[in-house]
Amino acid sequence: MEVTKTLDRFKALLYQLNDLRTASSVLGWDQETYMPPKGVEARSRQIATLARMGHELFTSPEMGELIQNLEDTGLPQWDPDSDEARLVRLVRYYYDKQTKVPGDWVQAFSKLTSEARVVWREARARADFNLFRPYLERIVDMVREYANFFAPYVHIYDPLLDNYERGMKTAQVRALFQRVRERQPRLLQRILERPQVDNAFLHRYYDPQKQRELIQRMVAHIGFDLERGRIDLSTHPFTTSFSVNDVRFTIRIKENDLSEVLSGGLHEMGHALYEQGVDPKYDGLPFGHGVSLGVHESQSRLWENLVGRSRAFWAYFFPVVQRVFPENLKDITPEDFYRGLNRVEPSFIRVEADEVTYNLHIILRFELEIALLTDELQVADLPAAWNEKMKAYLGVTPPDDAKGVLQDIHWSQGSFGYFPTYALGNLLSAQIWRAMARDLGNLDDFMRKGEFQPLLGWLQERIYRHGNKFEPQEIVQMATGETIQADPYLDYLEAKYGDIYGL
Amino acid sequence: MEVTKTLDRFKALLYQLNDLRTASSVLGWDQETYMPPKGVEARSRQIATLARMGHELFTSPEMGELIQNLEDTGLPQWDPDSDEARLVRLVRYYYDKQTKVPGDWVQAFSKLTSEARVVWREARARADFNLFRPYLERIVDMVREYANFFAPYVHIYDPLLDNYERGMKTAQVRALFQRVRERQPRLLQRILERPQVDNAFLHRYYDPQKQRELIQRMVAHIGFDLERGRIDLSTHPFTTSFSVNDVRFTIRIKENDLSEVLSGGLHEMGHALYEQGVDPKYDGLPFGHGVSLGVHESQSRLWENLVGRSRAFWAYFFPVVQRVFPENLKDITPEDFYRGLNRVEPSFIRVEADEVTYNLHIILRFELEIALLTDELQVADLPAAWNEKMKAYLGVTPPDDAKGVLQDIHWSQGSFGYFPTYALGNLLSAQIWRAMARDLGNLDDFMRKGEFQPLLGWLQERIYRHGNKFEPQEIVQMATGETIQADPYLDYLEAKYGDIYGL
Repeated sequence: MEVTKTLDRFKALLYQLNDLRTASSVLGWDQETYMPPKGVEARSRQIATLARMGHELFTSPEMGELIQNLEDTGLPQWDPDSDEARLVRLVRYYYDKQTKVPGDWVQAFSKLTSEARVVWREARARADFNLFRPYLERIVDMVREYANFFAPYVHIYDPLLDNYERGMKTAQVRALFQRVRERQPRLLQRILERPQVDNAFLHRYYDPQKQRELIQRMVAHIGFDLERGRIDLSTHPFTTSFSVNDVRFTIRIKENDLSEVLSGGLHEMGHALYEQGVDPKYDGLPFGHGVSLGVHESQSRLWENLVGRSRAFWAYFFPVVQRVFPENLKDITPEDFYRGLNRVEPSFIRVEADEVTYNLHIILRFELEIALLTDELQVADLPAAWNEKMKAYLGVTPPDDAKGVLQDIHWSQGSFGYFPTYALGNLLSAQIWRAMARDLGNLDDFMRKGEFQPLLGWLQERIYRHGNKFEPQEIVQMATGETIQADPYLDYLEAKYGDIYGL
Repeated sequence: MEVTKTLDRFKALLYQLNDLRTASSVLGWDQETYMPPKGVEARSRQIATLARMGHELFTSPEMGELIQNLEDTGLPQWDPDSDEARLVRLVRYYYDKQTKVPGDWVQAFSKLTSEARVVWREARARADFNLFRPYLERIVDMVREYANFFAPYVHIYDPLLDNYERGMKTAQVRALFQRVRERQPRLLQRILERPQVDNAFLHRYYDPQKQRELIQRMVAHIGFDLERGRIDLSTHPFTTSFSVNDVRFTIRIKENDLSEVLSGGLHEMGHALYEQGVDPKYDGLPFGHGVSLGVHESQSRLWENLVGRSRAFWAYFFPVVQRVFPENLKDITPEDFYRGLNRVEPSFIRVEADEVTYNLHIILRFELEIALLTDELQVADLPAAWNEKMKAYLGVTPPDDAKGVLQDIHWSQGSFGYFPTYALGNLLSAQIWRAMARDLGNLDDFMRKGEFQPLLGWLQERIYRHGNKFEPQEIVQMATGETIQADPYLDYLEAKYGDIYGL
């Protein structure tokens, strides 16, 4: 078979796989937004069937032969940065990921984690770690086995990290987090010595329907295309993409907390702008979505924080919000609003953390994951270790394990290696912002005028359009001219909160 | 392989097929309700991929061998009415339907009808039949070819009818329609000689959100389970089922026509009650949904008309509606409301037809379809034949072909044999109603008290729970003790409209 024909067949299979995957995403979206309560059992079956058929198709001998054939006949003649060469290399990477793990292990792990999720919910509800402990012990054992399917490695955590942040190494994350640990807890300490910022006005009653219309107007103004996407409500906000022309995100609305819809909405909008910004020619191929969890999170955090918690942004948007909620906000100035949205306060719960504390929640989890996997820490000792680190990094001690070690779903699903990407996203957001400012000049000037197209255009050109074609660290390099750094984010935090808290 | 193992594998494939089919239904539901406009291209690809994979799986050699094996080893030992025996026979029926049609024909027909649909829309917009004519000519040719894949047959229309109403024959439909033609046009004629009923109050402004809440309350009261289903908005109302525990229907709301949501809502609720009423043990198997278009339509029409256009129903529900819209309905009595909802008026458009004219629209189409397929009528002469029959049966002549021969999508999709099921549903609705009254006594007494559980319970016991296990005509026999009849419906019409119009 000549190479173009092989390539056509290869792509046809990839399109088919993508249709299965995105069909499953539609089912998942519906499950979180509109599905009636008793639909869940059939829905689980439908999603499982699509996943199984996708797995069978992707790991089929035909796919293996097509990749091998294209490596032998295509790669020698193609430009290594061409779409074709990159596609073959990317699919080889995914193919090896899937095929190196024995089917028996996958089945056993899937069974273990579905049981563990149920038990974890129960354990969290009762704040009883011991219920969950035997499951977590088996999960840690199986995760170690998983990593060993990818031996040799420099660090046992490397193959896990790689699942969420392709190419990233444990040593690199360690170095970055070391830098964060040197500067961020100290900043937090200094803030806590200063008078607190008032945000009581955010907790008045805000009509849910008006909140929904407000965020819809704001994201449409910024550049989210409602002809190619939509916004719905769900318990846990998320973003999902069925194609570059159908990208959806959800919001959660709290009647007595306006910051929920603003921060959550702009966060998910950031993910969604990235997905809408991928070059349409990549739609349906493995290039057709954002590159990694870390880079994706850099975009949600950039729009949520660098944009959506900036003084310049609210100089433009506060009057809009004030007109929607005149009663609640008549006595509030743009500066009050800005400061209220940037109140710093250590909490037990990661997902409620502010910019100054978020990374510390992550570093704690990263260190514990590594200690568990390298046997430096036993699962039985995990709650104590958790609480110790909370005290050391954040200065607080959880009242129970529900607000401590049991708070996140990740470990019950076996998702070791996931957490660091949240902090990498934070670091990258400020680094990318700095690079954008080098090119565009004062970004505040745009935001104060409500002009977001220059920012969005720059991100699209440098990052979004490439989708998943390049490696995450190549994207960082292409966008910023550097490898990933911690200092831009730490500089940003110190400048911003130094000003707000008068340090 | 012993028979239980063969049966297990057979069922596993059927469950897998059902997951693919229902996943596709979720995608279709989303497309009509929430999908952003530009999502349509990817959505078509996703649905096409699921359909293709389902077709490949169902027509695979393995499926053929499993059926054959179960016919050889299972059928001789099983009770012919057992679930097992019925399942094998039903799947054999579908398997032969699919495998007797050559892949080339399917592909060519799919291409022709997708083009034809686009051209039909254009032709209807311009009221220009000649645009559509060459496509319809090719469609008629190909439909004839299709029928011949199922030769020998008594009538060329039989294999087409069978696609929508399994086991129904052209001769049987002809006899039923003959009876309708004897009585229904005469009733219409007599009604038109009488003073018209006033329904102007239905065309006041009715707040859409309140309409939506009203219909939701009404159907929940009647017995639609909102824990196992939901109601959304769409341009064309429809019902869809993803499992017996997730059945959804849509409504269309017109600000200036309250009857739209009432009749459309109760119609779709009828379909949905049927789907929710299937025995849960059949969920995921080919038994797990309603039995045929005609029987299905009998339930939508029964709830829409026999229930939802009855005096007794509005004796209970009019006060509810009046409380929701006090301004609009303060001067209206339950009797006014009942009469307004039953106004008879011949129109050009089938989907706007009332009870007295609906069947006549169908008989016209049935006769034209047969004439085209048997070459008694040429496509070129179709518009003239259409208008002649409209004059003869309904006494009106369409002003142009958009309001005449071009009004329905069915022929552009190649759906010959579909139309009769609408009228069969009408006939069956009254026949089933009569049988229910024989068992339960005066049904009006229940409705006047707002008690629908006895009616729903009877239908569930006699019809719904069986799903698709039996043949449509067996279901009719089991529910009513008779074969399908025209007279119960004609008696119902004459009594009801004789009273309303004082004949």
